[in-house]
Amino acid sequence: MFYIADSQIDQLLSDDIQHGDLTTRALGIGQHPGNMVFIRRQSGRISGLTVASRLLTKLSLNVTLNAQDGHDALAGDVLLTATGSAAALHQGWKVTQNVLEWSCGVAGYMAEMVEAAKKINPAIRIACTRKSIPGTKFLAIPAVIDGGGIIHRGGTAETVLMFANHRHFFAQSDNWHHQVSLLRTDAPEKKIIVEADTMEEALLALQAQPDILQLDKFSPPQITELIALSHQIAPHCLISVAGGVNRDNIQQYAETGVELIVTSAPYYAIPADIKVVLQPTN
Amino acid sequence: MFYIADSQIDQLLSDDIQHGDLTTRALGIGQHPGNMVFIRRQSGRISGLTVASRLLTKLSLNVTLNAQDGHDALAGDVLLTATGSAAALHQGWKVTQNVLEWSCGVAGYMAEMVEAAKKINPAIRIACTRKSIPGTKFLAIPAVIDGGGIIHRGGTAETVLMFANHRHFFAQSDNWHHQVSLLRTDAPEKKIIVEADTMEEALLALQAQPDILQLDKFSPPQITELIALSHQIAPHCLISVAGGVNRDNIQQYAETGVELIVTSAPYYAIPADIKVVLQPTN
Amino acid sequence: MFYIADSQIDQLLSDDIQHGDLTTRALGIGQHPGNMVFIRRQSGRISGLTVASRLLTKLSLNVTLNAQDGHDALAGDVLLTATGSAAALHQGWKVTQNVLEWSCGVAGYMAEMVEAAKKINPAIRIACTRKSIPGTKFLAIPAVIDGGGIIHRGGTAETVLMFANHRHFFAQSDNWHHQVSLLRTDAPEKKIIVEADTMEEALLALQAQPDILQLDKFSPPQITELIALSHQIAPHCLISVAGGVNRDNIQQYAETGVELIVTSAPYYAIPADIKVVLQPTN
Amino acid sequence: MFYIADSQIDQLLSDDIQHGDLTTRALGIGQHPGNMVFIRRQSGRISGLTVASRLLTKLSLNVTLNAQDGHDALAGDVLLTATGSAAALHQGWKVTQNVLEWSCGVAGYMAEMVEAAKKINPAIRIACTRKSIPGTKFLAIPAVIDGGGIIHRGGTAETVLMFANHRHFFAQSDNWHHQVSLLRTDAPEKKIIVEADTMEEALLALQAQPDILQLDKFSPPQITELIALSHQIAPHCLISVAGGVNRDNIQQYAETGVELIVTSAPYYAIPADIKVVLQPTN
Amino acid sequence: MFYIADSQIDQLLSDDIQHGDLTTRALGIGQHPGNMVFIRRQSGRISGLTVASRLLTKLSLNVTLNAQDGHDALAGDVLLTATGSAAALHQGWKVTQNVLEWSCGVAGYMAEMVEAAKKINPAIRIACTRKSIPGTKFLAIPAVIDGGGIIHRGGTAETVLMFANHRHFFAQSDNWHHQVSLLRTDAPEKKIIVEADTMEEALLALQAQPDILQLDKFSPPQITELIALSHQIAPHCLISVAGGVNRDNIQQYAETGVELIVTSAPYYAIPADIKVVLQPTN
Amino acid sequence: MFYIADSQIDQLLSDDIQHGDLTTRALGIGQHPGNMVFIRRQSGRISGLTVASRLLTKLSLNVTLNAQDGHDALAGDVLLTATGSAAALHQGWKVTQNVLEWSCGVAGYMAEMVEAAKKINPAIRIACTRKSIPGTKFLAIPAVIDGGGIIHRGGTAETVLMFANHRHFFAQSDNWHHQVSLLRTDAPEKKIIVEADTMEEALLALQAQPDILQLDKFSPPQITELIALSHQIAPHCLISVAGGVNRDNIQQYAETGVELIVTSAPYYAIPADIKVVLQPTN
Repeated sequence: MFYIADSQIDQLLSDDIQHGDLTTRALGIGQHPGNMVFIRRQSGRISGLTVASRLLTKLSLNVTLNAQDGHDALAGDVLLTATGSAAALHQGWKVTQNVLEWSCGVAGYMAEMVEAAKKINPAIRIACTRKSIPGTKFLAIPAVIDGGGIIHRGGTAETVLMFANHRHFFAQSDNWHHQVSLLRTDAPEKKIIVEADTMEEALLALQAQPDILQLDKFSPPQITELIALSHQIAPHCLISVAGGVNRDNIQQYAETGVELIVTSAPYYAIPADIKVVLQPTN
Repeated sequence: MFYIADSQIDQLLSDDIQHGDLTTRALGIGQHPGNMVFIRRQSGRISGLTVASRLLTKLSLNVTLNAQDGHDALAGDVLLTATGSAAALHQGWKVTQNVLEWSCGVAGYMAEMVEAAKKINPAIRIACTRKSIPGTKFLAIPAVIDGGGIIHRGGTAETVLMFANHRHFFAQSDNWHHQVSLLRTDAPEKKIIVEADTMEEALLALQAQPDILQLDKFSPPQITELIALSHQIAPHCLISVAGGVNRDNIQQYAETGVELIVTSAPYYAIPADIKVVLQPTN
Repeated sequence: MFYIADSQIDQLLSDDIQHGDLTTRALGIGQHPGNMVFIRRQSGRISGLTVASRLLTKLSLNVTLNAQDGHDALAGDVLLTATGSAAALHQGWKVTQNVLEWSCGVAGYMAEMVEAAKKINPAIRIACTRKSIPGTKFLAIPAVIDGGGIIHRGGTAETVLMFANHRHFFAQSDNWHHQVSLLRTDAPEKKIIVEADTMEEALLALQAQPDILQLDKFSPPQITELIALSHQIAPHCLISVAGGVNRDNIQQYAETGVELIVTSAPYYAIPADIKVVLQPTN
Repeated sequence: MFYIADSQIDQLLSDDIQHGDLTTRALGIGQHPGNMVFIRRQSGRISGLTVASRLLTKLSLNVTLNAQDGHDALAGDVLLTATGSAAALHQGWKVTQNVLEWSCGVAGYMAEMVEAAKKINPAIRIACTRKSIPGTKFLAIPAVIDGGGIIHRGGTAETVLMFANHRHFFAQSDNWHHQVSLLRTDAPEKKIIVEADTMEEALLALQAQPDILQLDKFSPPQITELIALSHQIAPHCLISVAGGVNRDNIQQYAETGVELIVTSAPYYAIPADIKVVLQPTN
Repeated sequence: MFYIADSQIDQLLSDDIQHGDLTTRALGIGQHPGNMVFIRRQSGRISGLTVASRLLTKLSLNVTLNAQDGHDALAGDVLLTATGSAAALHQGWKVTQNVLEWSCGVAGYMAEMVEAAKKINPAIRIACTRKSIPGTKFLAIPAVIDGGGIIHRGGTAETVLMFANHRHFFAQSDNWHHQVSLLRTDAPEKKIIVEADTMEEALLALQAQPDILQLDKFSPPQITELIALSHQIAPHCLISVAGGVNRDNIQQYAETGVELIVTSAPYYAIPADIKVVLQPTN
Repeated sequence: MFYIADSQIDQLLSDDIQHGDLTTRALGIGQHPGNMVFIRRQSGRISGLTVASRLLTKLSLNVTLNAQDGHDALAGDVLLTATGSAAALHQGWKVTQNVLEWSCGVAGYMAEMVEAAKKINPAIRIACTRKSIPGTKFLAIPAVIDGGGIIHRGGTAETVLMFANHRHFFAQSDNWHHQVSLLRTDAPEKKIIVEADTMEEALLALQAQPDILQLDKFSPPQITELIALSHQIAPHCLISVAGGVNRDNIQQYAETGVELIVTSAPYYAIPADIKVVLQPTN
């Protein structure tokens, strides 16, 4: 359960229906009572229903939830039903559909990545980066969780993660020992995570004994090699893998034995296909 | 030029860097002066630079723009440079990169769609729907324009567009004449646009003489047939095509002779790849 | 039905009752239960009730609506009743009264303009401009609709409307053909509307065959003449009239046969007079 | 000088120019450099220039102020000039004009009321009520001050003002002594102001020795009589007059000798007429 | 009763629980039903319950209030109970506890100051300044009222209060007569309050006959002397005392006979201690 | 460096100076040019200057910073100077003073705690909790950092921290092994922190081998004992101490050898005393 501020729900509505639905108004049908049904065309993981419900409720519609975020729907399942005036139904239609389709798309992609990877290694965990599409974080984070993923870091203050761009500011940019030691001192309640872009960097990093070494854009054979080395050099250091992992290639990464994968791929999933039918009621 | 409220710029920053960059702080490098360069790895259309500049300026960085929204960059081109403290640079880095990569991705996809279609029919226009990814409209609309597209409708009050879900609220839902006549009366300053989902609907719609008939998910052969019929039945009616058109198949649609294509595909473009390097200055 | 964001309802309250009603507090009567009745002193069109209800509900009052936006009230009609603590009633009183009086004033003026014009020409439509009083658009647009008017354009991106100030940026500012042709190309889903300030401009404009020619500050005889000419020069072009039309002179304009009038006059209507009585309950 | 939050400036812009000026875009003139001049057509008091400047500056225009809020302009005076791209000028045009016209209208009306009243009684002061048009308070209060008026009360917590609707909550609603005494006790830093709607109430009120007695909708002869009585009954009590006073009748009220008039009339002033010309620059 | 905007309630939640409670999520207990009880460990004045209820309600919890703002609780009293999912309970826990502890702390301190002072002089009133801790005003003002205090001034436009820093802008900065006369003319509905920092200033001030003379950082003997002098020099002028008064020394000030004390001390009260227990329900 | 949204700066201003400074206005001195100097009366750590500068700049004042956040000032040091109109200076005065006094108070208290503790154990670190005073987090976090402290956790999603209230939701609430194992699995990038309220709980907790064991309200002798036990039972587990530690008793805690102390005490520091003088300039 994630709290989303009213202003963000209002923003979604204002972005789409400010000044109402002109077509409904010009047709003169706004006061007719009706209902609206949201139906999954394909099976898959559900996300966005809580937001959908808040959107429609703000339009004075009565909402019945027929499913639950984080669960799976079958093709043809009704996700929710809303009743009220045609004016409100037509205003709520596409903005809600759009949220549901996008959130279900992300959650579904995430769920498929997790499932594929766990077939190879049941202990693996898939974390999504902070690089969600600008403006979507309030929906993206719940969708990742609904898909069975975890959050890599919500922002730059949440964890310690040292990039090459940080190391550039040291006279000796490859003195990983010094850098890790500074981080340990000032962030005692955080794991010390460092990123390496090359095999050479990775070896230097391991010698500094961080809590986690994140490998950026390493190939599966390189990862396999690195994990073996890490057992010797830094047995308490967890290896994580980032850069270029997606639903289609995740099993190759899982086969390296890596226990943590960091990805942005689910954010770019194709949206789910959700059918919406509006009908008058008597 | 699109005005974006300060609160949206602030929201992008707050989503990522609330409470600062912990790693920079723990390393004790925040006060070092430095610069940051954003470089396109591949050529393509530029978008998001205006927002990038506002993001970095809010962090008290000095920004030099080396390129312009709506223009094309070559691989290796520097888009912008910022100078200031390492603390500010590290806070501005990823949020700005993320905006640029996403906006350039959308604009680039749009530009490629336009170019492909215009090779077949130079008079064709490509309009993007209001179904941008939730929360991204303030970036998506400028990116579409920067890519050479146009806006289909900003929201439900901007144009008249009658869907089947509107017609359901009439006792005689297929009395298109009556419906078009109501719309003309109440929306004299708008074009009357109606959507048809089947060939039968399209023929009924044409007989009602709307200004534009939008065909949803019609195949190119169906579209060709419909355009021919429209010349006889409703010579003043423009045919537009929506549903399923993307960069890869747009030429097949363009070959039908249709003059207006409505699409959401650019919103789901792969983001552009932009390299960011931070370096200390003396 | 128009969706209004919570922040705008909250702004209305904060503008008036921040830190409570000092008089109620100093009198020590805040906890007494009571009710509050809003009564129209004169008959007229109703608007603002939906907002009124939201204002009072936010103050934890129980609200009963006795009337409906867009309908007509008789003198003495009760519009709504609220019950709750004296503290809440006194805070809700004037802010709600103020919204109702202003919204009813605008809607009533609009309704009288529409009625007067339709007596002369039943097919005429009255559209309100985007020049609502700064800060009032969220109330002004619903009031115009409740009064039987339509919306000219919600903002600068909603329609194409070419002013002289646009034409100034062309080397040949009076090449209307060129300008209309550019607009048609880039805005295929919009009617092309152009404004003329003089008879000479109007004739040039008609020859460019826009969809609508808007005459700014033309006298009724000039309008009559122009409409006749338009039938010859541009038979598909609708003539609209803007500038200086109000409730008192609209019939003179209607007699010209013009079918569309654009006005800002309702925004400056005298507010309706609504009596509010607060009483304790036992 | 009144501080106005950025969000209110942004709201004015978003209300009008969200998604840009479509006409400028479709004409392809947005990148031309140009200037824009705001000219008073008639003489009168100036207000709204500070906000105008902030609006245009937010659009990246360079602004030159040629006049000052609170001063008087002659017919033909240039108020401000802005330079920049045609895209920005066209977006800034009407929203700025609208603010200036409305603010100058209110300030001008206020100035004329003050001038008329002071001709009769130089010591008189004119205060504007809190019943500004909903949504306009941030502009209305500066305009009142720029017009030479004062603020009656910014909201319900600013002053003590007892209405009949407050007194209804007492078992003995006409025990003014008791009520005034409660107010004095709990609000020692405020003047105790009470409102009377009838001559009988006014006499009872005076006997309770408030600091100010506000007469609601009393005729000038009644006011004259009341002032005379007040000199006997409550010599330290100031009489103020509210309800129905406007620019046309204020001198009749001033002749009663009343020293404080409370009015909402300036909020409904006709807006000033300000001409705006946009021109390209080379 | 004080109206607090939704955005401020949302801000409190976003400050603490953005992205949910990670621990609850990682433990997998979020969907368990449970309840949460807030219990005062010590007796004292209650404040913040209304806000607490809104916080928890926004998290979809069912809330039962067992006490009331402005009343006194005994040690061990339950203030409120909430039921719902463990996920929601854990998100609401500390943010609500924090509001209640702080608000009760301020109100309790205020109540003790009032009680102590009234033992010496039952007619004394204690007003809190506008110098609440930055960001807390929306909670601080209700807490002061719940504690039996009054509000000195909500902001700089609420009352007239002349400081030395105002007088510095006069050529003759000690011409109090002139200054008080200007204030009386332009602010007829306000009491004229002036502040003196020394005995010499206080005497000059009294001679100008303000409505209230506020003594800043005067010792009790100085205050006693000043009050005696005021009876001779300015019998209608109320003396108020500000600067350095707190719960521990207020009785010494009360013994001077002063009737109005202005303080910021309650804002810095130690927060109350409120125990919160979460338990599963079956 | 911490980014603070414009809306929070605007909120501080609106809370205090909405509708301007009435006293300045009534005195007629608003247009006089002047300057304003902020001077520390006592030495101590500086915080809040960045916000102060933004507040004053928003009022169109020219600001010169004479000091820097995170540095120490001597008694009598000028922190900043602002120049501009008396109207703007008087509006900026107290709101800025209030921010500076509060922020410097927190930072100063923090600095004194750090200094006292480091005298005993130079390796100790002091972290501030998320229980900052409601509404103050945007100022409190920078002040803690300026004072040499670190942030315990910004919110409930930043770290894993298991309280008794979490354990209550397990059938076997004291199965720490199971709980720690769940946390490790789902939060691989976080340290696993658990809190114990009693010696018995602490021993059970240690056996579960968390990364950090936080002792709530333990006495220094208990802490000493626990640390010794932890070396045997869980040598990789860091002990931290929370509850009741403040500036006056921190040395007793430091002497236990604990390396991490968690506290809320700085949030309740007495504000620093900052003198502000406004003067006219010629």
